[in-house]
Amino acid sequence: MSTVDHMKLFMEPASVALIGVPRRTGMAAWNIMENLLNSGYTGRVYPVNPNADEILGRKCYPSVKDIPETADLAVISTPRSQVARTVKECAEKGIRAITVVTQGFADADEEGKRLQAEIVRIARQGGARIMGPNTFGTSNAFCRFTSAFAPVDLQPVPIGLICQTGLFMAGIPRFPMLGKGIDLGNACDIDFADALEYFEHDPEVKVVLLHMEGTRDGARFMEAAARVSQRKPIVALKTGRGEQSAQAMQSHTGTLTGADQVYHAAFRQCGVIRVSDIDEFHDFTRAFLRVPLMRGSGVGIITIAGAGGIMAIDACEKYGLRLGRPSPETLEKIAFLSPPWQALENPADIWPAIMIARHRIDEVLYTIADAFLADPDIHGIIIVSHAGLLLGAPDIFQRARRFDKPVLCWLYGSGMEQLIDDIEAKGETAVYPNVERAARALSRLKEYHGYLRGERR
Amino acid sequence: MSTVDHMKLFMEPASVALIGVPRRTGMAAWNIMENLLNSGYTGRVYPVNPNADEILGRKCYPSVKDIPETADLAVISTPRSQVARTVKECAEKGIRAITVVTQGFADADEEGKRLQAEIVRIARQGGARIMGPNTFGTSNAFCRFTSAFAPVDLQPVPIGLICQTGLFMAGIPRFPMLGKGIDLGNACDIDFADALEYFEHDPEVKVVLLHMEGTRDGARFMEAAARVSQRKPIVALKTGRGEQSAQAMQSHTGTLTGADQVYHAAFRQCGVIRVSDIDEFHDFTRAFLRVPLMRGSGVGIITIAGAGGIMAIDACEKYGLRLGRPSPETLEKIAFLSPPWQALENPADIWPAIMIARHRIDEVLYTIADAFLADPDIHGIIIVSHAGLLLGAPDIFQRARRFDKPVLCWLYGSGMEQLIDDIEAKGETAVYPNVERAARALSRLKEYHGYLRGERR
Repeated sequence: MSTVDHMKLFMEPASVALIGVPRRTGMAAWNIMENLLNSGYTGRVYPVNPNADEILGRKCYPSVKDIPETADLAVISTPRSQVARTVKECAEKGIRAITVVTQGFADADEEGKRLQAEIVRIARQGGARIMGPNTFGTSNAFCRFTSAFAPVDLQPVPIGLICQTGLFMAGIPRFPMLGKGIDLGNACDIDFADALEYFEHDPEVKVVLLHMEGTRDGARFMEAAARVSQRKPIVALKTGRGEQSAQAMQSHTGTLTGADQVYHAAFRQCGVIRVSDIDEFHDFTRAFLRVPLMRGSGVGIITIAGAGGIMAIDACEKYGLRLGRPSPETLEKIAFLSPPWQALENPADIWPAIMIARHRIDEVLYTIADAFLADPDIHGIIIVSHAGLLLGAPDIFQRARRFDKPVLCWLYGSGMEQLIDDIEAKGETAVYPNVERAARALSRLKEYHGYLRGERR
Repeated sequence: MSTVDHMKLFMEPASVALIGVPRRTGMAAWNIMENLLNSGYTGRVYPVNPNADEILGRKCYPSVKDIPETADLAVISTPRSQVARTVKECAEKGIRAITVVTQGFADADEEGKRLQAEIVRIARQGGARIMGPNTFGTSNAFCRFTSAFAPVDLQPVPIGLICQTGLFMAGIPRFPMLGKGIDLGNACDIDFADALEYFEHDPEVKVVLLHMEGTRDGARFMEAAARVSQRKPIVALKTGRGEQSAQAMQSHTGTLTGADQVYHAAFRQCGVIRVSDIDEFHDFTRAFLRVPLMRGSGVGIITIAGAGGIMAIDACEKYGLRLGRPSPETLEKIAFLSPPWQALENPADIWPAIMIARHRIDEVLYTIADAFLADPDIHGIIIVSHAGLLLGAPDIFQRARRFDKPVLCWLYGSGMEQLIDDIEAKGETAVYPNVERAARALSRLKEYHGYLRGERR
């Protein structure tokens, strides 16, 4: 069986054996089957618990061997002392994909390390692959599947997440992090390269997010990452950067990490976009999903407040971008908007055009945006505005699509949260809570474009 | 009249003359009087407009000279060509505080610069002070006053803002930035030092925020800032960091900026906490308002996910903090919670205690938080958790207050926004959307404590 075929069993199982399902249900029971059924999964579900006849109205089997078919996937959450025996039974039953949820392996003590090596050996002998241990396993919004024991925010967004913690599956506020999620846990067998191969040709995934503590096989990871990043952006949060965290990491997933610089260099070489926190995960993903890449470093700034223009320039300089220099023809197109004592340039401070020259907001914004986007030295735009003002120019982002250049926003305004969400939901721009984050996202659109064109970063 | 007496006229006027009030009202009229009345201001308001008998049901005066009293404050928004004459009339009327909203002075052309110098000269001759020009003027939630021409989010929070743009008064989502706000605009007369003096002894303001493009009188600013920062934290966003923005700044507020490093050194010397974006404004302000300062660099981490602990360590190292080393006695107090194969330490990964040892969430969180907070090497705590879990331990932040140490949080969980807001609204912790921001805020609580104790940063 190929890696991708194995991965499909983990990600799109038609049937699943849940071994070690507790009889407890409801809050704080962390019952995998209850969670799976609540998610709307429509495949066949076989709970295994020798101490129960049925759980949640489903017939229980005393052992995986008693299930009337060979399930695509087995999810094991028995106590760690029983895991090796259970893996053996699964392999003997012919199951080829086994997720071990249970903690207490390489993430714990010496006995845990020994047990982890043993289950890998048993699985390989039987032609099976193991996800975990110490994992939420897999989640897939497109088939409403999850092996997590806590609620997962399943939304069919084109984002593929590969991580080493269930934390990301539980949902970070305001933005769904995954349409498909793979928690590698201790990554004793299925590792980053395997998961990347699955996403490589997956049409349902347009951006791949990695949360990585470390990987055992750096060469294979780099080969896979370089291949995938030619097709879709990979955004990576590599944790365990310092010495203190490397120590803690060994007791989390049992990963021995290499020096942080090694990972850093590897990411650069493979076109992997590194982030340092979850805000960047959100920010870059939204940019990649919603606007075109940026084909140069010249930024046009359209701002309702002079101070916002200055902050935008600061931010562009900080992230390796520069102010675009609009041509005389471009400036000519917009000159009629401003009062004579303050010519419009870049940044274009539009307030005098509205307040003093009394032009309509749509006339001002459409004229400047069109002129800037048509300018050869402007490769992307940042709009700084009170969100409410954009109600007067609702087509600005749709118009921008004609130019195949990115337009990102910093929109503010107390009580404007819903409006900001609505603007972004149209899928034509990404909105950030400050201009630094907008410029940072723009810079990554430029860097990734450079990578695809073979430029060194 | 002292500076503070002048500032009180700007900030707490009992009566205000609004000169150049437009007859237009409603959306996009930017009518200062309409905005002021909508804000609930109960002082006396005198609109001046020679072309109207009344506006919004208020009797209009042809000139400031016709108003039946000497108003505390005059707010001028006539075209720039009439401003000098109007300032003269105000001074002659005996008005001692004059806000010039109008644009087109040092922010524009040579004629504007000349006009700006002229109005300063006229005002000084009459014993008046000028705020602006090119400004929203002042806002004060405690007396429902604002001279802004756009809606301002007035909430009586103990935050005093001094800025050079109306942008901050229009309200950045999710957090009110000001209880009192002073937009200096071009700062032709009233400057940062004057505004700082006003906030120095103001019991309604506990944290001072600065948005600064530049100041004319660095020595006076430093003297005032050093004095104020002994009483309350000053958090500053200095914009115009690079060359490109310095150029744009001259056409925004007409400020000639010095090298960024000069400001940087001055801030350090005066204990001013510098930020680079608006997220930091929010993050630090909420920390200063809600939790005690941090009296050392040792952090205790309590996390529901091993991966979150590792991210927390990374973040602490990045911001000059370190993992606290709990004493054997501290570890002894919490040892009973964990399964034998994974002893609790720092970071304290609490999931095995809940999932495997089946302890109650409140027992786990209260026991560990109390033990960590009592430990002499732990000076503050970061909690990493799914927000929903804290429903099981609702008193954790109140309990922490006994120890006079800061507890900050990274709380996540899809759909948990309201719960997170509710937790923070109790005023006992500040919640951040990722652990980097929590650690960054904690580091500023430590640095400011060090500054107050006379440590060099």
